Formats: sequence, C-alpha cells, structure tokens
Amino acid sequence: MASSVLSDCSLPAPARLLPFQRSVQSRTSQFQRSVSFAWRPLSLSAIRSTASPHWSLSASASVAVTTETSAKVIDGKAVAKQIKDEIAGEIVRMKDGIGIVPGLAVILVGSRKDSQTYVRNKKKACEAVGIKSYEANLPEDSTEEEVLKHIACFNDDPSVHGILVQLPLPRHMNEEKILNAIGLEKDVDGFHPLNIGRLSMQGRDPLFVPCTPKGCMELLHRYGVEIKGKRAVVIGRSNIVGMPAALLLQKANATISMVHSYTKNPVEITRQADIIISAAGVANLVRGSWIKPGAVVIDVGINPVDDAQSPRGYRLVGDVCYEEACKVASAITPVPGGVGPMTIAMLLSNTLSSAKRIHDFNNHKKAYAGCMYILSPEALSTI
Amino acid sequence: MASSVLSDCSLPAPARLLPFQRSVQSRTSQFQRSVSFAWRPLSLSAIRSTASPHWSLSASASVAVTTETSAKVIDGKAVAKQIKDEIAGEIVRMKDGIGIVPGLAVILVGSRKDSQTYVRNKKKACEAVGIKSYEANLPEDSTEEEVLKHIACFNDDPSVHGILVQLPLPRHMNEEKILNAIGLEKDVDGFHPLNIGRLSMQGRDPLFVPCTPKGCMELLHRYGVEIKGKRAVVIGRSNIVGMPAALLLQKANATISMVHSYTKNPVEITRQADIIISAAGVANLVRGSWIKPGAVVIDVGINPVDDAQSPRGYRLVGDVCYEEACKVASAITPVPGGVGPMTIAMLLSNTLSSAKRIHDFNNHKKAYAGCMYILSPEALSTI
Repeated sequence: MASSVLSDCSLPAPARLLPFQRSVQSRTSQFQRSVSFAWRPLSLSAIRSTASPHWSLSASASVAVTTETSAKVIDGKAVAKQIKDEIAGEIVRMKDGIGIVPGLAVILVGSRKDSQTYVRNKKKACEAVGIKSYEANLPEDSTEEEVLKHIACFNDDPSVHGILVQLPLPRHMNEEKILNAIGLEKDVDGFHPLNIGRLSMQGRDPLFVPCTPKGCMELLHRYGVEIKGKRAVVIGRSNIVGMPAALLLQKANATISMVHSYTKNPVEITRQADIIISAAGVANLVRGSWIKPGAVVIDVGINPVDDAQSPRGYRLVGDVCYEEACKVASAITPVPGGVGPMTIAMLLSNTLSSAKRIHDFNNHKKAYAGCMYILSPEALSTI
Repeated sequence: MASSVLSDCSLPAPARLLPFQRSVQSRTSQFQRSVSFAWRPLSLSAIRSTASPHWSLSASASVAVTTETSAKVIDGKAVAKQIKDEIAGEIVRMKDGIGIVPGLAVILVGSRKDSQTYVRNKKKACEAVGIKSYEANLPEDSTEEEVLKHIACFNDDPSVHGILVQLPLPRHMNEEKILNAIGLEKDVDGFHPLNIGRLSMQGRDPLFVPCTPKGCMELLHRYGVEIKGKRAVVIGRSNIVGMPAALLLQKANATISMVHSYTKNPVEITRQADIIISAAGVANLVRGSWIKPGAVVIDVGINPVDDAQSPRGYRLVGDVCYEEACKVASAITPVPGGVGPMTIAMLLSNTLSSAKRIHDFNNHKKAYAGCMYILSPEALSTI
C-alpha cells in the first residue's frame, strides 16, 4: 500500500494522453471532460512547463504532510444514494398528487461506446427513481438540422421536462448552437449562458445549477461544512465545473480565488484555503503540501494512470494525492466514490425540479430534495 | 494639504448615509450605485460590525505607507477624451461609408433631478461624438406596461442601436423585468443575464461588456499593465462592477480573488494583489497598508464625505485613501478623474459597436476603438 501511495503521488502530471488514456478520458462523464477544458488556454508543452516549477512541492509546507491526522471521508456514493431515495419519494408524491411523472430526454449522436454507456447509465438511474427516459439515437453523419429538429420536438413535448445532448458531438457539429437550442426551462445540465448569467448575478436565480458543481456544494452542506466567510480556492476554471463552482461558493458568501494554468504560485494560494475544489484534470496535482491543515478538499478530477495490476491496464485517480491529503485535510472526497456519483444524482434532481416547475407542483423547492444548500434560507436568498 | 490628507484617510467608513449624502449617492452614476449593491447582503449594522475589525489597518503592513515612492496617476479623463475622439472618427467613417449614424435611446421615468442630470450628460456626450440620442420621458406614476411599450418601440426602431433605462426606476416597477425587455443586441449597458453568462464562460463572447468594468480594463491596457498571470483582487461583488470586473480579469488570465463584506481578512488578501480594483462604496476603505508595494490600484468608488469648505458641504472621495496609496502603489486612478469619465466613454463605444454589428459595417471590431483589451488577440480569444 505504502509503495502504491508513493507510486501514485510521485506520478508526474501527464504531459499528453496516450491513445488508451484518450479512450479512457473520453469515457469520463461531462464534469471530467470539462476538467480538461480548464487547461485549454495552454498548449500541452505549456502545461508541461507550468507543471514545473509552478506545480512543484513547497518545501516550507511539506511538513504538514508528515502530520498523522486522518481526514473524514466524504462519501459521495452514500449521499448520492440518499438523494436518489429522496427524489424517488418526491416523484411518488408528485405522481399521486397530480398524476405527472418527470421525463428526461437524451439525444445521442453517433455510436461511441463510452457515450452509449453514459446514456445507458442515465437511463438506468432515471428508471431507478421513477423518471421516464426518452432517447433519440442519431447516426454519426446526421446533420445539425436533424439534431435541432429532435431538440425542437422534445422542447414541445409536455411529457419531457429535461433535455440532455450527450457530448461530445461529432466534429462537424456546432456544439454551442445545438446546446443553445435546448429550451431554457428544460436545460437540466444548466449550461445555457442565460443560466450561467443568472448564476453569476446577485439576486438572480438560475433555473438549473450545473450538476457537478451542485454536487460539490451539496456534499459540503451535507457534511456541515460552513462556507460563509471562509476562504475557498477552485482549481480549474472550466465552464462546466470550475467557473460555476466558484460562482456558487461566492454566492454562499465564501471569499473565492480561482487557480488555473496561468497561476504562478498555486501552492501559496491553495495553502490559504479552508475549502479546496479541484477540477484540474491532472493526476495527483494537489499534494499534501498544497493543503492547509484542517481544510476540506473536494476532488472533482478523474484521471487515468497506468496500472499493470489492473485488468484494464490503468486505474482512475483524482487531482488530489489522496494518501498525502488525508493526513492534512479535515475532510476529503475519494476518487472514485466522491463527486462522481453526485453528478447523476443532481441531474435527476434537476429533472424533478423542472417537472415541478413546469407543472407548478406545490412546494416545488422540494424538487431540490437532498440539496440542502438550495433549501437553506441563506442559499435561497442568493441562488 | 497634509492635514486634509489626515482628515481624509482617518474618516471612518460611513455606517449610514445622512439624508444629504443619500441625495449625493443618488446623483452618482450606475457604477456608483452598483457599489452600494455590493454590500446588500449585510444590514447597515452588520456593515458597521464588519467595518471593524475586518477593515482595520494591518500594523505589520503599515510600514509600506511610510515609503516615499509616488505612484503614476492613471488619467481617466485624458484616456476618455482620447477614446471619444477615436469614436467620433469611427462615426464619421461609418457615416461616409454606409450613411448610418449610431443612435442611443434613453428612457427616463419620473423627475429625479440627479437622473435628469445623467440623461442630459449622456445626451451631450452622444452629440459630442456624433451619436444621435433619443429620449423617452415618462411620469413617475407610469405603469410597467408603458415603459415596456417604449422599450418595444426602441427595440423595433432601426435607427436606435442602444437602449438604456435610467436607474433607479420608481419603486412600483420590477427593474429586472424591465431591463430584460431590452433587446439583447441593443443592451449597451451589458447587464442582461445572457450577456453576463457569455462574459462568464470561456470561449463565449458577450455582445456588450458592462461599461464601468470595461473602462477599468481599458485603463489597465492603455497604461500597459500586464494582467496575464498576475494576482488580481476585486473589492466588492456587485452585478454592475465587481462581479463583471473579476470575470474580465479572469478571462485575461489573471488569478482573481473576490473580497466582499463577508471577507474576514481583506487586508491579507489585497496585500497579495498585483492589481486591485475597488468597487466597495466605502470612503477611504483601502489604506496604504492594504496595498502591496508596486501594485496597480483602480478606484471605482465615489463616496460623499463632509467638507465644510465646499459650497455643497461635501466632496467626493474614492474607496482608496489616495494620499497613502500613491506612496505604495506603482499606479493609481484618482477620484474624480479616474474611472468615472471612462464609464460614459465605454457607453459610447458600446453604442458604436452595436451600430456596426447591426449594420454589419466592415471591421466592426474597430467599434471598440480605444478598447485595446478587446482588440488584443489574446483578449479576442477569451472575451
């Protein structure tokens, strides 16, 4: 174990993805893809150059790593299960009350194995809580117009309350144009710029909060982590995770800093944080020395690393060197089993929320069942 | 002078506005109003309580104040004049090229003296550069529907390229509903959530950047202040200044932190900043000791303080204790004459930009004449 710890945390940040890793990366879900976006401004060689010295250990801080405290494990799998149970209960209440069952439509273009797996998993998750799922499978060579036509149909279909276009789309399609075609009131991914704008603004209320950052906030609230007045650092600034996570923390009255590939002294900044959310997509980027003793660490990254002992030849690790971090942090999410399971739970939560809003079902804030940070009066006043 | 320095900088942050100050505050323009929004989450008493000790001087840092360097003055008045000249030139080029003159419509509801003054000033500024201005003056007791009807007319009028509703609106009106009715392609204030969303997102491009933060960025670029990779701290998080300013700095690849009324240790954070933008609306909040030696300071605040020697009985000061700051900073904006004049220049720039976009006038990026940070390839790729 100790040796595996060392081999894990001594891994360099990947300068580039090997072909098999690329396929793994492509099997990751939306929030993982977003993580790689966070580094787009830099070329791979630039990433390599910023990886050192910017990402190197801080000698002065490394002492912290040697302390023998052990962080509380934030069990995203268990929380996600609890939330799904709450959502299932809400769906029964809604069906009994107004005879409506929430519906989620997923549009899949092409035949990527990984995308097919996601769609299948989302379908399963929907069925498990009582959400009706709809699917549109289009061939790889479909035109933009065909995809837009299906979106328009789902926009008009009263039995569909959430629409999700499985990414990535084939290269010949304009992703922005297609995502913007999804009706705002059915944009359960919360990626529409109008949703992001309302998320950014004080006193405005987005219809949907993007699933992965919402899951991160939910974990913080479920574990009673105080956010107001705390220093929070978000590593990575993708549209799907880093940026909305920072906006949510700020709305919850944290003092936020955003660390990204142009940041010259990330360790100096993360060492000041009471809360760290890492969505960088770089294996073992965040060492124990990056973390203030007692900080809470949310690890969004899921990164493939070689593992000869694994039948697949690789295993998935987070952005955070878990073995080091859990000796410094007061609480930490594992990878896998941390943020990952929360994303799909939040997708189901958003779909239920949408159905309640569209049908004006009483007390529709309960659509956020299990989303305490939305239910808390303070959050309600700001989000 | 020395005594006036002391009297200025020793002023406490105002716990509440006296009636005469309120009227002064209401005479301030949009970016100043926004400043007070930044503190909405706190009650006035809470502001008083956070004003101390959170806002107190840091003894360890106060040494910096005693250094005798003198900051370069960032002359917003001169830059604004230069930009207006560039805009006037562009308008002539456009008129000669396609016979189109940009038009700005301002809707004023009620008869507030201060609002009337703003509208008059905007009209003058338009005339000075060749923009045609349109006005709709409605009585205080107008209905929302009447205002919305005028907005709809201006939305449909091809000779109007920018629409601005003078704030504040009468209490009985829903500001959000009215502002959202302005056609996105004519929202020259850039306050529409869709604009803010696109401003927040990597790889998206807002149609308009809000005028005051755009003016702050413009000053930084005009004075050759490097932003990429620098630590930037924004004080205040209003929808109109603080939040969009932080988003713009982040898009320009600064590492940003946002300080607000819930921040426990603002001095500690601002002392790390290479660039400070203060939009707090608290007179002399930022002391010399808050500033890292050599930092660049942009002061958005315009706050009334008693001045028996002034015929008006008050004078306007910034958020930053200028006399202390200019001994520590490498460059600083004065108040007045710093950010203030830039706001209206950016409004004219946005109106010209809108006209060029609507009429597809060649090289319409030149509509941002004088807005170097928009014209710079790096900014173009991110904003």
